[in-house]
Amino acid sequence: MKAFEYGINISRLRKNLEELASFGGNKEGGISRLAFGAEDMKARAWLREKMEAAGLYSRIDEAGNVFGRLGNEGPAVWAGSHLDTVPNGGMFDGALGVLAALECLQTICERQLPFRWPLEVVAFSDEEGTYKSFFGSKAITGLLTTEELACARNMNGQALAHVLSAVGMDIQRINRARIDHGQIRAYLELHIEQGPLLESKLISIGLVRSIVGIVSYQMAFLGTPNHAGTTPLELRRDAFLGAAEFSLKVYDWVRSTTSGVVNIGKVDLYPGAFNIVPGRARLALEFRSPSSEGLEVMEKKILSLGNEISRKKGLKFSASKVSWDSAVRLDDTIIQLLQEEAETLGYDYRIMNSGAGHDAQIMARATRAGMIFIPSIGGKSHSPEEACSWDAVERGATLLLHGLLRLAREKKQSK
Amino acid sequence: MKAFEYGINISRLRKNLEELASFGGNKEGGISRLAFGAEDMKARAWLREKMEAAGLYSRIDEAGNVFGRLGNEGPAVWAGSHLDTVPNGGMFDGALGVLAALECLQTICERQLPFRWPLEVVAFSDEEGTYKSFFGSKAITGLLTTEELACARNMNGQALAHVLSAVGMDIQRINRARIDHGQIRAYLELHIEQGPLLESKLISIGLVRSIVGIVSYQMAFLGTPNHAGTTPLELRRDAFLGAAEFSLKVYDWVRSTTSGVVNIGKVDLYPGAFNIVPGRARLALEFRSPSSEGLEVMEKKILSLGNEISRKKGLKFSASKVSWDSAVRLDDTIIQLLQEEAETLGYDYRIMNSGAGHDAQIMARATRAGMIFIPSIGGKSHSPEEACSWDAVERGATLLLHGLLRLAREKKQSK
Repeated sequence: MKAFEYGINISRLRKNLEELASFGGNKEGGISRLAFGAEDMKARAWLREKMEAAGLYSRIDEAGNVFGRLGNEGPAVWAGSHLDTVPNGGMFDGALGVLAALECLQTICERQLPFRWPLEVVAFSDEEGTYKSFFGSKAITGLLTTEELACARNMNGQALAHVLSAVGMDIQRINRARIDHGQIRAYLELHIEQGPLLESKLISIGLVRSIVGIVSYQMAFLGTPNHAGTTPLELRRDAFLGAAEFSLKVYDWVRSTTSGVVNIGKVDLYPGAFNIVPGRARLALEFRSPSSEGLEVMEKKILSLGNEISRKKGLKFSASKVSWDSAVRLDDTIIQLLQEEAETLGYDYRIMNSGAGHDAQIMARATRAGMIFIPSIGGKSHSPEEACSWDAVERGATLLLHGLLRLAREKKQSK
Repeated sequence: MKAFEYGINISRLRKNLEELASFGGNKEGGISRLAFGAEDMKARAWLREKMEAAGLYSRIDEAGNVFGRLGNEGPAVWAGSHLDTVPNGGMFDGALGVLAALECLQTICERQLPFRWPLEVVAFSDEEGTYKSFFGSKAITGLLTTEELACARNMNGQALAHVLSAVGMDIQRINRARIDHGQIRAYLELHIEQGPLLESKLISIGLVRSIVGIVSYQMAFLGTPNHAGTTPLELRRDAFLGAAEFSLKVYDWVRSTTSGVVNIGKVDLYPGAFNIVPGRARLALEFRSPSSEGLEVMEKKILSLGNEISRKKGLKFSASKVSWDSAVRLDDTIIQLLQEEAETLGYDYRIMNSGAGHDAQIMARATRAGMIFIPSIGGKSHSPEEACSWDAVERGATLLLHGLLRLAREKKQSK
């Protein structure tokens, strides 16, 4: 590793990450800090104290997003991520991006490193979707629809409106969290990869080009439920056999032909007894691609495979789209800038796509957005086993600092 | 159709079947006459009245089996089936065998047709297994174990002991239903085929050679649950892909190599979300064969396919046997006798295997047992759509009458 002018304080960052992990942490190392729950609210208060102690001006908006600013009013350079976790999640997902940003601003403040544009740490509300995925970043960018707000519920059916009022917030005021896009000069997010790529290739840093688009479908193969003892194999219309053949063909095609991925996460057979030929097989299927054209090609081929195999087997096929989130390409100038800084720092890096969703994909609708990945040990994520080395954390946070300084020192016309 | 000496009264049999269908019948034509439920108990009382009116001596035993006898004490020729249905079943399964036997005995009585051995109609309890499959016939033949009795529960977890006492019976006295096997000279059962074979081949009568053995297994493929966006396809250990490939290979092998059938009726993926690679796939699988050697060959091959495919895909495979019911070969002399009578009557017939279980397979452990099938329309069974033509019912009941008379007129040494 090359020597470099300035760096972050890894001991302090580590201590902060470990302190934050105590909010919602259980004995087995898992963390359940669900959005707007008691532990998540306590973590926000803790973060605001840390921000103030670091010399930042802190505030919380109408959507529960927490900010800490260094510098005056006016268009700022942002960095952050989210504080909330999935149930029984890990200590880095989200938390790393927020606390590394805090560490960067604290370093800049302490060392009095010069900058032209104000800097702002942001901790977005409910990225994980306990009530509504990307709730905080969507509120800030004005992308939350009235319908989304009205329909947002947790797995127990509790409405977002209800939980917000329980923590002293008001769903009617969410739209006030919107910020004029011109006030955000750029957004950087440091995150664990959540996959095995960087670790398996022994690469320190990932610079994200695209965040994949995700399409999900409920699909059904319909046959005839029959007595499994008295119906000869050649006279059956077995919905599961259609679904199984479809599944294998879809995976083969996606693997051999696309740069995307596919998953069949849930299968239900009806009526669902040992001795009844399945009359219906329902599949929960999603596919992802780094480009919108990729998503369209995949959708067309997957649906046509479903129809083709059903026809061949005397089944009926139906498919209903559950969601379509387009792929998002992050800002090329930011990738370029992070690439130069990584080279200066002597970090090996790889330009890659993100297979998971991040607040950066929402922020990309409002400003130049970029993401830095560090390796996840064993590629684990959304699990108590989620981990990364402190060396990796230090490299990631250092690159974030260098990136933020480059952006905060830009001349006016760069935006 | 050739003319013949004597026949049954099809109008009366039809009327009886339609009357019985009103016990537990719903508006859509389905019948729910679950064993030991109120409708089933009412149907027993109705049946006893019909028996007495037909000139039979009726009784009910400690297991709830209903009998109607023509003739004196001593070894008798039996015919029957069961009164209970599956939830939302049809009007012929079980009921036909009981009421056709009643019709035969009533015909013999009315026309004073001569016989040497007494004749007995039997309606077995709980053939469908609301609490315990073949409960009544197992009680009579002494095949119910203490453990089976203690563990018998319905789908809601209600114990057999509890329901029996609610209808005035006593689980401690079930063993008194056992009958000395020497008291049963033979057993005949008329039943709908419950499959499409006879109808598709335009054959009137099936004479059953074997009732298939049934083996059921819970199987599991174990992989690694991973993030479906960030885990590349080639690094996944997707339990469902193993299960799907296994399923297709098992069906192909069974179809091309055996005289048996296989069914995968239920599939569960864990954790079961759109965006998580399935870490576990559980399958409910059963296979059937008309011979015990066939079952053994199938078991060996199916388990080895599971192991082989798992190894290839980096998964683990486990299989636990849920049940093993051996194949039962029915009595050759009875088949011969029914064959001769079918020829006399001018009915086309086919010797075939039964893919479903029947009380006859239990009775075969105690006496010479035979079964007559008539075509099911569309092969439907265990459904409100279960049906057969009244012509088919008449032919089946007539052949039953002729078979019963042959057996009731046997010389002493035939048993």
